[in-house]
Amino acid sequence: MLLAGSALAQGETPLQEKFDAALSSRDQLAWLKLTSSEPNQVGSPHDKFIADWELDQFRKFGWDAHIETFQVLFPTPISEAVEMGSFKATLQEKPIPGDTSATARDYALPAYLAYQGDGDVTAPLVYVNFGTQEDYKQLALMGISVKGKIVIARYGKVWRGVKPLLAYKHGAIGCLIYSDPADDGYGEGEVYPKGPMRPPQGIQRGSAMDMMLYPGDPLTPGIGATADARRLTPKTAGSVLKIPALPISYADAKVLLAAMTGPVAPANWRGALPITYHVGPGTQPVHLAVKSSWDIKPAYDVIATIKGAQFPDQWVVRGNHHDGWVEGASDPLSGQVALLDEAKAFGALMKTGWRPRRTIVYTSWDGEEPMLLGSTEWAELHADELKKKAILYVNTDGNSRGFLHASGNQDLGTFVTGVAAGVIDPEANVSVGARVRAKTLTAAAAPGANAEIKAEAKHLSDPGSDLPVGAAGSGSDFSSFLDHLGVTTLNIGFGGEAMGGGVYHSRYDTFEHHTRFEDPGLAYGKVLSQTVGHAVLYAADSNLPLLHPADFARAMSGDIGKVEKLADSQRAAAEEQKTLLAQHAYAVAADPTEPHGEPVPLQAVPNFDFTALDQAGEALTKSADAYEAALAVHSATLSPVQAARLQALMQTIDQTLLNEDGLPGRPWYKNLIYAPGRYIGYGVTTLPGVTEAITEERWSDVPKFIGLTAQALNAYAARLDEATALLKG
Amino acid sequence: MLLAGSALAQGETPLQEKFDAALSSRDQLAWLKLTSSEPNQVGSPHDKFIADWELDQFRKFGWDAHIETFQVLFPTPISEAVEMGSFKATLQEKPIPGDTSATARDYALPAYLAYQGDGDVTAPLVYVNFGTQEDYKQLALMGISVKGKIVIARYGKVWRGVKPLLAYKHGAIGCLIYSDPADDGYGEGEVYPKGPMRPPQGIQRGSAMDMMLYPGDPLTPGIGATADARRLTPKTAGSVLKIPALPISYADAKVLLAAMTGPVAPANWRGALPITYHVGPGTQPVHLAVKSSWDIKPAYDVIATIKGAQFPDQWVVRGNHHDGWVEGASDPLSGQVALLDEAKAFGALMKTGWRPRRTIVYTSWDGEEPMLLGSTEWAELHADELKKKAILYVNTDGNSRGFLHASGNQDLGTFVTGVAAGVIDPEANVSVGARVRAKTLTAAAAPGANAEIKAEAKHLSDPGSDLPVGAAGSGSDFSSFLDHLGVTTLNIGFGGEAMGGGVYHSRYDTFEHHTRFEDPGLAYGKVLSQTVGHAVLYAADSNLPLLHPADFARAMSGDIGKVEKLADSQRAAAEEQKTLLAQHAYAVAADPTEPHGEPVPLQAVPNFDFTALDQAGEALTKSADAYEAALAVHSATLSPVQAARLQALMQTIDQTLLNEDGLPGRPWYKNLIYAPGRYIGYGVTTLPGVTEAITEERWSDVPKFIGLTAQALNAYAARLDEATALLKG
Repeated sequence: MLLAGSALAQGETPLQEKFDAALSSRDQLAWLKLTSSEPNQVGSPHDKFIADWELDQFRKFGWDAHIETFQVLFPTPISEAVEMGSFKATLQEKPIPGDTSATARDYALPAYLAYQGDGDVTAPLVYVNFGTQEDYKQLALMGISVKGKIVIARYGKVWRGVKPLLAYKHGAIGCLIYSDPADDGYGEGEVYPKGPMRPPQGIQRGSAMDMMLYPGDPLTPGIGATADARRLTPKTAGSVLKIPALPISYADAKVLLAAMTGPVAPANWRGALPITYHVGPGTQPVHLAVKSSWDIKPAYDVIATIKGAQFPDQWVVRGNHHDGWVEGASDPLSGQVALLDEAKAFGALMKTGWRPRRTIVYTSWDGEEPMLLGSTEWAELHADELKKKAILYVNTDGNSRGFLHASGNQDLGTFVTGVAAGVIDPEANVSVGARVRAKTLTAAAAPGANAEIKAEAKHLSDPGSDLPVGAAGSGSDFSSFLDHLGVTTLNIGFGGEAMGGGVYHSRYDTFEHHTRFEDPGLAYGKVLSQTVGHAVLYAADSNLPLLHPADFARAMSGDIGKVEKLADSQRAAAEEQKTLLAQHAYAVAADPTEPHGEPVPLQAVPNFDFTALDQAGEALTKSADAYEAALAVHSATLSPVQAARLQALMQTIDQTLLNEDGLPGRPWYKNLIYAPGRYIGYGVTTLPGVTEAITEERWSDVPKFIGLTAQALNAYAARLDEATALLKG
Repeated sequence: MLLAGSALAQGETPLQEKFDAALSSRDQLAWLKLTSSEPNQVGSPHDKFIADWELDQFRKFGWDAHIETFQVLFPTPISEAVEMGSFKATLQEKPIPGDTSATARDYALPAYLAYQGDGDVTAPLVYVNFGTQEDYKQLALMGISVKGKIVIARYGKVWRGVKPLLAYKHGAIGCLIYSDPADDGYGEGEVYPKGPMRPPQGIQRGSAMDMMLYPGDPLTPGIGATADARRLTPKTAGSVLKIPALPISYADAKVLLAAMTGPVAPANWRGALPITYHVGPGTQPVHLAVKSSWDIKPAYDVIATIKGAQFPDQWVVRGNHHDGWVEGASDPLSGQVALLDEAKAFGALMKTGWRPRRTIVYTSWDGEEPMLLGSTEWAELHADELKKKAILYVNTDGNSRGFLHASGNQDLGTFVTGVAAGVIDPEANVSVGARVRAKTLTAAAAPGANAEIKAEAKHLSDPGSDLPVGAAGSGSDFSSFLDHLGVTTLNIGFGGEAMGGGVYHSRYDTFEHHTRFEDPGLAYGKVLSQTVGHAVLYAADSNLPLLHPADFARAMSGDIGKVEKLADSQRAAAEEQKTLLAQHAYAVAADPTEPHGEPVPLQAVPNFDFTALDQAGEALTKSADAYEAALAVHSATLSPVQAARLQALMQTIDQTLLNEDGLPGRPWYKNLIYAPGRYIGYGVTTLPGVTEAITEERWSDVPKFIGLTAQALNAYAARLDEATALLKG
């Protein structure tokens, strides 16, 4: 579908041309070099420098800009140790000559997981693979418990913070996480500095907050962390971990894992270290100790505005964070310099006399790395205003070479497709939309392609179809907008060709690494600026609402089908397990020379009545089709008054998807359609109220959330019907 | 279903009890120690010693025994080299103290692939993953050719001999095969002597004959290799490879692979070496040279007989080979000593005055390793007699700890199930049938279980269902019986708990390794003897035919469905590819900084008329059901004359599945239902005439083989109908 209501996306227009002409990969390179020259974590001198420098830049470009400061809990390590016998893990990377890691002078955080729980423990290790719920089920089958043990998990599969959380819930007293070379080291490509991937001594820092409970400052859930806010303590804050945890390198993990005994790890638990992976428990105890300084530190959000000429109270908000774990060249500064370049280009447009019809708000967030501190506190503080005024939040983060990816509210599919049709890919000389379409279609044609990509390709093989906007969970600064406020959200970027991830959250995420391996010359930095810039231009100026509900309705039909299948398959699995247990099948099949146990018992799954959800899905599809049809006929002839009323109806439609009481056990998460999976982390769980009630065997929550979710979808459809009536009327 | 017509399988009977009582793990251990004390490849002194010693044993046990000698081509290396710059691969394993590898004194074959083509070549390396057809398609997509190069492939996925054959067909001038530690080295478990898996210096020897064309002596296809047989030359023999090839260890492969350049290998191409796997071509040339002595050597088959008291011209044949690649303790001698123990137990029965009703023929084959030489030549020489007299061939090979597996003619399912119900598993204290059922059911209940095992479990969850008998291709001495003669074939063994394979075809396949890791105390050696012994006892004495066609009919319905789906999915893939090529989608999606190409073009797939095959499948099911029903009603009241006529009809029924002209391009393979896949090797391709005509785009062969295959199934059904009429009559 093409975008209606604006000429902007129908190929190059003078305004887009002017915008594009002001963009400059060279400027982005210079800014990247400057901002990634020193460690820039929350509370560091360079973090403050970046905020101040950006404030100046915005003002120079002609924006109205200021810094908003929040006071956030941000513990940093005082001392830490991982030891086994005479072996001591090296908990900091060595500088690499010729790299910023060797020229930066400020304090670089050592190996470290923010919001782990300080402690000093000694116990045998158990290797838990990725440390997921499935992995603990496998451990039960193997008859191995982590109670009183220290677990060692490898990075991957689920978000980092899930690993120590599940370890704690299973009785472990400490948690190590290491980067297996299979996942982002030599198994994936040559290691830095020869290639892009993680060298043996590389360490992935990161947050271990229980952000699935709530993100942002742990001491001020739901409210802005202003200086005078009412605060919890680190001990009473639910999102702070209760056990000590540290990340380690694979050079160090190899020593610990090679000393393990016990059964050989299952085939899909093995990484690329040249050892036999054992599950343990190991015979040699490991000592893990972490002590932190639990400080409140300032987080500096830079907020810059161009006031809308016609609709100043309709805001297009766009953000990217500016804090890193060390130098953070890729993550986040590659996205940050693209944002600045856009700001510069909007400044250039303003110098020609242009003003957007709506207000444009550019935000440079602090404290994303510890867990979305700057964006969450700002969104919480300005919640009411944002829910009223924000028509769109566009987020980016680290950027790289390759293919466009977009996620967020799925009613943005048509909008994204229109934007992507107007930006040329620098490598393939077709639009970035055409390129991602070709990528999906060829990947789906490859032998062994999975059913999901085949289904996506089937949809995309119709050249008139919209590009997919993936459902989003968390993992970057869009979370508060999508999950908490229900503001229409788009998270966007490029990647997939640079084998990235090898220096993620390490001391080697540097200017040199980024410009050699991730995006030479920042060609895709400029493409990102174009893509986001065109999206913002369109959103700020369009006569018609951004949202096209047909893609969303299609996604919901799929998700409703999935959750019903989930209940069925879980019911069948419980029945199958019951039979097998009665037959002692597990005991009979087990190898008696190895430890073994029985599976974690599954509760019998009741039959649920999904009718309300089925009907809501069907009604949504019907209302979406009617709206699209009415829009096609009447959009060209709307009066300004009608257009304004249509905009008013549509700009908050995604907020109909919220439940004010939130999800069970985590009231901060209010979106009934999208949430970070409770034990997945960044990854999304769609229809989370229903889905997680099933997976967590909370049977009474299933009908309750079938009802609430159906109600939300019905509210969305009702809003569409109002808009359709308006269009026809 | 229980076996009808014999009390043998209905729990222990005096005869089975007496048989079992005569078995002895201790005897098996002593014999294993003796026979695996020296290298025993074809033509070696110890190979001759084993044959002579076994002849004596059979005679001592009271059998009528003799040795049949064939004269077979068996080249062995004179000189060989794999070099890169100053690096020279070590092409022999070091002895390990305390292991037979250190005490044996005779000549141990070095790294070596029998029937490779001598040569001396120097060229860059290309890494081709497993060297399968899919892998060459991936290479085409990556724009990489092996023409004029030496390929290096890892063991696994397809049979060894397919790798150099496909390399040659794609223009390579040499082939190295190495054992990746992911597949049978430290990636799977601790390495020998600490654990069972392949140590860095371990080398997998083996045959590189094109046995998919024909197995056995390359110089005498289709006829027995007697001293005076008419012979081809090594140059004119179609099954001899045209390029030099050698296997190497992973210690050596690591050096070669670490020096590779070019694109990083795709994710599923990477093994467990601590390197980044590149596809190449490498920049450093590799030198590969092999020179062999192309000798004719004697192969000694030991043939021992107990004449049937009632039906001397109905033979139950049972075999296992006695030649190894070095000491061959697991492969083949663990199966061989079980066979001898059975022979001893039958001897003990004979001493009590027992005689079987049918003739029992025990065979100890020579030359299986170079490629089924002894069994093939014997079967070819005695083809007419075997087709008339053999009612069953039971094969075993190396044996290990774990679960019963059975493959061969699928009308043996009921028979196998009955036998498996009467043998107790020494670890789980349930029948070996109940244990393998529990194993399949629990594996299918595990998260991530594939559709195939789920379908099998669904069938097995009915406790009255038969155990599966897998379709068989090749890979052991049953091939001539199943694939060439159509004699009803059962290949059987235990395994799955010992993480075997780590010393397969290496110098470390020793008595010490086998009794430490594969089958301590040979407990499963005795279980194998019991299982095969009971099967032979039943087959020799049963009043009723062994075969129950319902399982076969069910398998055929499934296979017919599969081949129709194959045609459909290949047609869809060709259409999809055509569209994508027209859109230049591959070029647009490719990373321009890496070499890339376009996919190997797929021909448009015509629409085929599968009606004849569908109807044959339905008729077979109907006839099978009618036969089973008639048997159930009338089997107890058959007169001896009727029983004899029924036996005469049923004992050659599996020969109705043959096509005298064989499969396209490989006339030796006559079975239209089962064949080793042309480019798979040991692994079976069912309905091979139709299936391979589709995959190899030989469109005119598709209707031809639909017709021939339908005809074969119809002939089988017609034979059943005759038997049903007889039963009713």
